[in-house]
Amino acid sequence: MEGFQSTIEHVLGFRVAGVHCGLKKQAGKLDFALVVSDYPCAAAGVFTTNEVKAAPVEVDMQRLKLFADKVRAVAINTGSANACTGRKGVQDAHITGTWVAEALKCREEEVLLMSTGVIGMHLPLDRIKSGITQAAANLGNNWHDTAAAIMTTDTRPKSGSITVTKTNGQQYRLAGISKGAGMIAPNMATMLGVIVTDAALQVYQVQEALRKAADQTYNRIVVDGDMSTNDTVIMLANGASGVTIENETDLVQFQDALTTLCRMLAQAIVRDGEGVTKFITIKVNGAPSDDAARKIGNTVATSPLVKTAFFGGDANWGRIMAAAGRAGVALKQDRLCLHIASSEDETPFQLVSAGMPLAYEEARATEIVKSPEVVITLDCGIGEGESVIWTCDLSHDYVSINGSYRS
Amino acid sequence: MEGFQSTIEHVLGFRVAGVHCGLKKQAGKLDFALVVSDYPCAAAGVFTTNEVKAAPVEVDMQRLKLFADKVRAVAINTGSANACTGRKGVQDAHITGTWVAEALKCREEEVLLMSTGVIGMHLPLDRIKSGITQAAANLGNNWHDTAAAIMTTDTRPKSGSITVTKTNGQQYRLAGISKGAGMIAPNMATMLGVIVTDAALQVYQVQEALRKAADQTYNRIVVDGDMSTNDTVIMLANGASGVTIENETDLVQFQDALTTLCRMLAQAIVRDGEGVTKFITIKVNGAPSDDAARKIGNTVATSPLVKTAFFGGDANWGRIMAAAGRAGVALKQDRLCLHIASSEDETPFQLVSAGMPLAYEEARATEIVKSPEVVITLDCGIGEGESVIWTCDLSHDYVSINGSYRS
Repeated sequence: MEGFQSTIEHVLGFRVAGVHCGLKKQAGKLDFALVVSDYPCAAAGVFTTNEVKAAPVEVDMQRLKLFADKVRAVAINTGSANACTGRKGVQDAHITGTWVAEALKCREEEVLLMSTGVIGMHLPLDRIKSGITQAAANLGNNWHDTAAAIMTTDTRPKSGSITVTKTNGQQYRLAGISKGAGMIAPNMATMLGVIVTDAALQVYQVQEALRKAADQTYNRIVVDGDMSTNDTVIMLANGASGVTIENETDLVQFQDALTTLCRMLAQAIVRDGEGVTKFITIKVNGAPSDDAARKIGNTVATSPLVKTAFFGGDANWGRIMAAAGRAGVALKQDRLCLHIASSEDETPFQLVSAGMPLAYEEARATEIVKSPEVVITLDCGIGEGESVIWTCDLSHDYVSINGSYRS
Repeated sequence: MEGFQSTIEHVLGFRVAGVHCGLKKQAGKLDFALVVSDYPCAAAGVFTTNEVKAAPVEVDMQRLKLFADKVRAVAINTGSANACTGRKGVQDAHITGTWVAEALKCREEEVLLMSTGVIGMHLPLDRIKSGITQAAANLGNNWHDTAAAIMTTDTRPKSGSITVTKTNGQQYRLAGISKGAGMIAPNMATMLGVIVTDAALQVYQVQEALRKAADQTYNRIVVDGDMSTNDTVIMLANGASGVTIENETDLVQFQDALTTLCRMLAQAIVRDGEGVTKFITIKVNGAPSDDAARKIGNTVATSPLVKTAFFGGDANWGRIMAAAGRAGVALKQDRLCLHIASSEDETPFQLVSAGMPLAYEEARATEIVKSPEVVITLDCGIGEGESVIWTCDLSHDYVSINGSYRS
């Protein structure tokens, strides 16, 4: 893994741009992005499971059914989510796609669309047209600007890349961007993300690899438990490197690289979560099943009481136990064990054994909980199921940011 | 409904007390309560469904299986939840019960117990013994002190009473107290509550009436979506008025009075929720079923984004739509209608029709959302199911209170 953050390997045959066209109020703030492939891509997407879906989500889902082997570009606007905008919202998405296709000299169906911003606002088409023109004229390898141009309440752009060397010495690259800081909840394709690779893959391989990677990464993060109307991650593979994913070994290697990239992009979202002061890893093991472990992890991760205790630097482990107990999983409370640590490498510090607190040193527990990273390990003691969730605390700033988001 | 808050009708044959015995740090703060009947009561309880249950919850559930026709007292301590305290926690609960029984000259099995406070802390038995002695010596009709003595982060005591006149002119009374300000979530007996009546009822009637009332009241409130390890509502009927609930008419009248009392006590919890600045009623109708409506209402009520928007006085209705869409209920987004009002009596102001915003006046929407009470009505437009949930906003103070609860 090289160059995580702004330095991105040049993924062959891809050009990107992030520009300002007036979608964000602040002068000069980047607010529109294009990710373009010079060749048709095998493409896949994972989308929000919200019943209230934004127009671009509906358009993309439709397009990927018919044109998943031909995708040429992804256009992303901020400012308006183009959700709850009815038929006009869908028309506006089509108009945007048409303009992008004209600028890139491809077909409208080969363009995918993403929107993020306020719900219930129609796209300001004139500004978007200007954004398309500018972005098309500035296509290059500036992933940093592209990642910045899709931010909303994010405080920093999120991008990353990986170069993979196959066993036969051939190399190909993956790169990706993501955004998201609020309305982040598990169990769906959360937030916006675009992943590209110059390896050659079949559509079904891209679909399967993205689904697997998202399930282990984007679907394991929680900021606030709210699910967006616009969550979308798109992956494009254009084969420009001439490197083909041929056999099982290649595929395993590709999946590993993709999952690693997605995990770093997903964790970057949590680290930049709205008002976040702390990155929290919740490991649940000894559960009846992996699914049960995940349920427990999600419940702990979304608990306002757990999140505020971490914000306050209070090792109030009783709240973790109480949250675990309401996850809808049958537990034996006298088997619960709880450890905390301030990093993955540290020896975990045990707070609870057999459902009861040990005579531990409170000062040490407080010190761990006050550190910027906390790893919680809850052992249910009743099975083999396990899961990991990444989350953050709930701070005054989260309340401030979301009390005044539209103003 | 008379005397809601501190003036409570004397419910015949019941005596109560709230005293200070050092369970709360602040000198003189009431922290231990007794509710005593001079006669054996028909009793019922509704309890947390959390898998991690406090010792007193387990003891009470056991006692009500065997002695539901003989209950004489409820003893309530603050400071320690007696949860995650293992076998010693259960022993401590039994010791507390024995002392109460000695003081009241009844049997240990006739005493029910409730605890609230920090999880994982053993009961300070010496202080509790002093609390029992003091409370037993001060039994009277001081419901205000009794309600105050069970408070944790509550800012005011919650009590109420109702006098019912039967069609034949006979009168009986109900009174109740409750507490709770955080760890309040729907779908279980939330918080602590004690309801008493001097009417004569059979155990099965008390059980059924309390279950029905709790389902329509305590189980319809949300502060933060967290479920406690200690939630308990106990109802005692001692028959001291000599008035019997004889027929269907009597029972309907009793149920109405009980549900009204429970609703006011439950709403009082939300109005005094941690950091609350706003009381929000969420009405969902046109859902596939009542259960689906309730799911949608709960999801909206627990959404941090909805709650912070209300705190900020921002009529960001898109967040209500997004929360409704992730409730796990199949919806047709182009049928959703949304109205808001600043009270039940006001004509609702429509924001959304057929899933899209109307050209409404933003200033009027903001004015409504900035008012201390907001009524949201979401019509799903696909069925007959309906439900009401009462909740509050999420403020800086909630974060402050829960970031430093144990300090």
